[in-house]
Amino acid sequence: MQPDRTLALKHLRELMKRDGIDAMIVPSSDPHVSEYLPQCYRYISWLSGFTGSAGTLVITTDFAGLWTDSRYFSQAEAEFKDTEWELVPLAVQGRPEYVDWLLQRIDAERSIAFDFQVMPLLIDKEINMKCHAKGLQVKHSDILNQAWTNRPELPAEKAYCISEDLCGESIADKLSRIRSAIKQAGASYHLISSLDDIAWTFNIRGADISYNPVVLAFALIGSDEVLLFVDEEKFAEGDIRRLKASGVQLRSYSSLQMHLKGLAASSVLLIDPQRTAKGTLTNLDRSIKIVESTNPSTLFKAVKNRIELDNILTVMRNDGVALVRFFRWLEKEVPSGGITEVSAAGKLTELRAQNPNFVSNSFAPISAYGPNGALPHYRPDEENPVVLKDYGLYLVDSGGQYLDGTTDVTRVIPLGRLSNEEMVDYTLVLKAMVEGCSTIYPKGTRGYQIDAITRKPLWDQSRDYGHGTGHGVGFFLNVHEGPHVFNKSNVAIEIEPGMVTSIEPGLYRPGKYGIRIENLVLSVPYIKSEFGEFYSFETLTLAPIDTRPVIKGMLEKRHIDWINSYNKNVYTILSSLLTDEERGWLRKKTMEI
Amino acid sequence: MQPDRTLALKHLRELMKRDGIDAMIVPSSDPHVSEYLPQCYRYISWLSGFTGSAGTLVITTDFAGLWTDSRYFSQAEAEFKDTEWELVPLAVQGRPEYVDWLLQRIDAERSIAFDFQVMPLLIDKEINMKCHAKGLQVKHSDILNQAWTNRPELPAEKAYCISEDLCGESIADKLSRIRSAIKQAGASYHLISSLDDIAWTFNIRGADISYNPVVLAFALIGSDEVLLFVDEEKFAEGDIRRLKASGVQLRSYSSLQMHLKGLAASSVLLIDPQRTAKGTLTNLDRSIKIVESTNPSTLFKAVKNRIELDNILTVMRNDGVALVRFFRWLEKEVPSGGITEVSAAGKLTELRAQNPNFVSNSFAPISAYGPNGALPHYRPDEENPVVLKDYGLYLVDSGGQYLDGTTDVTRVIPLGRLSNEEMVDYTLVLKAMVEGCSTIYPKGTRGYQIDAITRKPLWDQSRDYGHGTGHGVGFFLNVHEGPHVFNKSNVAIEIEPGMVTSIEPGLYRPGKYGIRIENLVLSVPYIKSEFGEFYSFETLTLAPIDTRPVIKGMLEKRHIDWINSYNKNVYTILSSLLTDEERGWLRKKTMEI
Repeated sequence: MQPDRTLALKHLRELMKRDGIDAMIVPSSDPHVSEYLPQCYRYISWLSGFTGSAGTLVITTDFAGLWTDSRYFSQAEAEFKDTEWELVPLAVQGRPEYVDWLLQRIDAERSIAFDFQVMPLLIDKEINMKCHAKGLQVKHSDILNQAWTNRPELPAEKAYCISEDLCGESIADKLSRIRSAIKQAGASYHLISSLDDIAWTFNIRGADISYNPVVLAFALIGSDEVLLFVDEEKFAEGDIRRLKASGVQLRSYSSLQMHLKGLAASSVLLIDPQRTAKGTLTNLDRSIKIVESTNPSTLFKAVKNRIELDNILTVMRNDGVALVRFFRWLEKEVPSGGITEVSAAGKLTELRAQNPNFVSNSFAPISAYGPNGALPHYRPDEENPVVLKDYGLYLVDSGGQYLDGTTDVTRVIPLGRLSNEEMVDYTLVLKAMVEGCSTIYPKGTRGYQIDAITRKPLWDQSRDYGHGTGHGVGFFLNVHEGPHVFNKSNVAIEIEPGMVTSIEPGLYRPGKYGIRIENLVLSVPYIKSEFGEFYSFETLTLAPIDTRPVIKGMLEKRHIDWINSYNKNVYTILSSLLTDEERGWLRKKTMEI
Repeated sequence: MQPDRTLALKHLRELMKRDGIDAMIVPSSDPHVSEYLPQCYRYISWLSGFTGSAGTLVITTDFAGLWTDSRYFSQAEAEFKDTEWELVPLAVQGRPEYVDWLLQRIDAERSIAFDFQVMPLLIDKEINMKCHAKGLQVKHSDILNQAWTNRPELPAEKAYCISEDLCGESIADKLSRIRSAIKQAGASYHLISSLDDIAWTFNIRGADISYNPVVLAFALIGSDEVLLFVDEEKFAEGDIRRLKASGVQLRSYSSLQMHLKGLAASSVLLIDPQRTAKGTLTNLDRSIKIVESTNPSTLFKAVKNRIELDNILTVMRNDGVALVRFFRWLEKEVPSGGITEVSAAGKLTELRAQNPNFVSNSFAPISAYGPNGALPHYRPDEENPVVLKDYGLYLVDSGGQYLDGTTDVTRVIPLGRLSNEEMVDYTLVLKAMVEGCSTIYPKGTRGYQIDAITRKPLWDQSRDYGHGTGHGVGFFLNVHEGPHVFNKSNVAIEIEPGMVTSIEPGLYRPGKYGIRIENLVLSVPYIKSEFGEFYSFETLTLAPIDTRPVIKGMLEKRHIDWINSYNKNVYTILSSLLTDEERGWLRKKTMEI
């Protein structure tokens, strides 16, 4: 264990003792219930050394543990080596299972604490309900901030407005739709804490969080006024004028609490309990009524408008060109032995960055050779970069943030000879992805149904993967965007035309290799029959799918047709953007099987 | 409208006016929250004429309507012809959508009433929550019983114990498992209202409700005592001794309330809010704590034990023999023109009844020719029986209650020439059923995943069906048994080995024909791979699947193999139980395609 982490834990326990706290809960969250966190909210990484993006710490006098899901088991075990920290596997991703653990170990009348400022309201409710039934006290504590001596400052990156040419809808129109929803919910005000909702609503983007082009802010929308709590210095003057011209009043980021305290006692406040921190509401007048519902903007932004979709199509072409150049470079350079997971990821970023609209990667690229591919959330080791050799599989899961859209794509490249097992698994994963992408489904279908259909080819062979099949993707916004999701859980959100989702089945053989193939798809109307309305997916991603590992006999004709037609389409659309040499290379790569 | 129904509605409205009731809600339920109801609880049929088994009436001064789901639209429309009653289509089966309708039409401070004695607790909660928010008063009323002048008596059919040879587990062992669950839930008592749970727990069966071999009763299980509230006269003396020998104390059916009133104030009572009526709990001491959870027996009985399964295999053979004889009879007799939907159903019941263990049908047989097959819950018209002709499709969905198990099977028989559309639809439905029955799925899979995989072949062709794919089936108990279900809804119950479920996709062309093919399947362990545990289905039903309408070119090899292997298996298992002539007939019917 690094001495400073040991000390930090020791110090925290002293503060717990001082304040009479028997157990401390530390969620991976911030006041905006973000998935990716600014440095200053990475309590978990600072305290325990775990750098994954999902998990919860629980600290008692004689225990220090992390609850996380299967995506991070290997990573947590590696990062906790030779420390006091223990990994506790979560049965269900995102559930506060540590509460049941605590209740079995902590006596009644003892106290559990966490920082209300970063605790999602929904989780807080569940903790409270369970603890209350057992007579346990739950209280706020900010001792983490006291213990963290060199805690970084809040980010203060520049922010900017994006034009309607890019995002397709004015702030005024978005506010008008949101206000209808507020009224419909019987509320007078709507508080938005989630940064992607705020970025979408106000057509603003920034760089306060890595990979997510968002701006630290809160928003309070009433029938007559719109307050945006954000540090004005982040914006250029022109942008400030633009926001004001849309009726947006700017207030300092830190003044939210003061304004909330001043809300009329008769107010009815609409908030999203999944995306609001407990601490944000603790100072509200007690007579203010709270209405809980998904943020209207979350539902609106999931359905992309025509201009966003046109821009996304352009982005996909440009992203595809970068990928073609990357794969060609890889094929040429790997045999020299000078390419590592790290340099490959760097090259891909460099190729994406040739697009003038490129802003950043949309997440930390997963550039994983051989056994490293078996860790679905692997990050290449910068200090000891792994060299790519001329055999086995290389998995690259990456994406870009562009002014005109967000990409996320995974391909697996054979670097030379493959085992039969690798080819069988590759073919099965590809078959699963084709099943997912070619699904026709009735209006009302939910993500769990697409998930099951995608997995079937793997289930048929007693194989499966531990992660979801797909996630919603923002428009030049978060690469993980709800409310819809394609996974096994019983989320009741219906898929609607205009939603963009990933389809990314995989197979992982720990110690050997990992395979995942991912496209983004757009839900579109398909047909109206006497049995109702049906939708289908239009595949957005334009990157050749390597057919060398495919065992054709394992596929049905419709899978082969899909693959051939997909690769042909990639060639047709990208060829005019490529040099002669690149085009020749791509033609070979996209030949029919 | 029949004059007595018009009068009944008029009378009810007078009583509503007298008691200051602005809207009356009448659910399809009884004090046991049964699906099929004793005559005396068929308020809906008595008042409105609607005879379907799911729906809710709402009556106001100027409106009388039925909320029901798509299975009953045609039936309700037919039954409401020339009456004041209106059909209101439910968007989601089982949801109290009428409350939102009422809230939009009734002013605050008005009052809504229903009979607490028959209102499921879960629905009551939802109604109350919504009405409370709007300031509406919700109250109990038994004016239905006052208005129903010739209301039938409570059923008083004979009941009996079944031996462990049949059901495989003693009352004592079942009680011991239930008591562990009560303790686990932190409760001191468990009240069971649902009749199938009581029948399972006490190894008793009866005939108080058509098709469901249950006995009107309540049960109260504590750590030291077990009270069964049932009319003792229903049982033979030997059975009473047997129950008492297992520690069961008998109390009269009507004395439940008195006992509940006498429960110690410190008691913690475990009840299932889905299967307990509001009225059952209204007299409880207010300090008694209620713990809500699915009845432990519901979870236990869904997983069949080895002896039950062995008996079910026997039942399936005998049921299969009856079906073979029926199909052969049908083929021979239809050309004569003397067979009707009614006489065919009667013949099938007669053939089933040749088995000495036969008790009754497990539901009203659906014997439907041509366009009538398009009504998923069709009941043949006894007064004007439809004659089967030598063309088109005949659908028969039927099942038996035997001492050694419950069956439910649907087959569609071509009676002569078919249209291409009929053959295409038949082939698609069969393909869907084969997909469902041959699914391999990981531990943790829920019904909605099986449902999606089953529907896929239909979705591929922009077709779908409005009902679920399958339901749990009891062991000589209710033909619809939870907690698991295969449908589109997000029910989070995991499928476990030992569960018996139907798989019954369909396609319906109103005015033309309906197709549904149904087998019962048993969930069994399949394999443990490095990706986890996988389960599969073992098909239980043994009835030949007619292959004449199959368009082979629409199927993949695995579907054809499955059908051939299934029919071969039917022949192999049934042939020794048939006469030479029957065997010869079955051999032809089960020839490979």
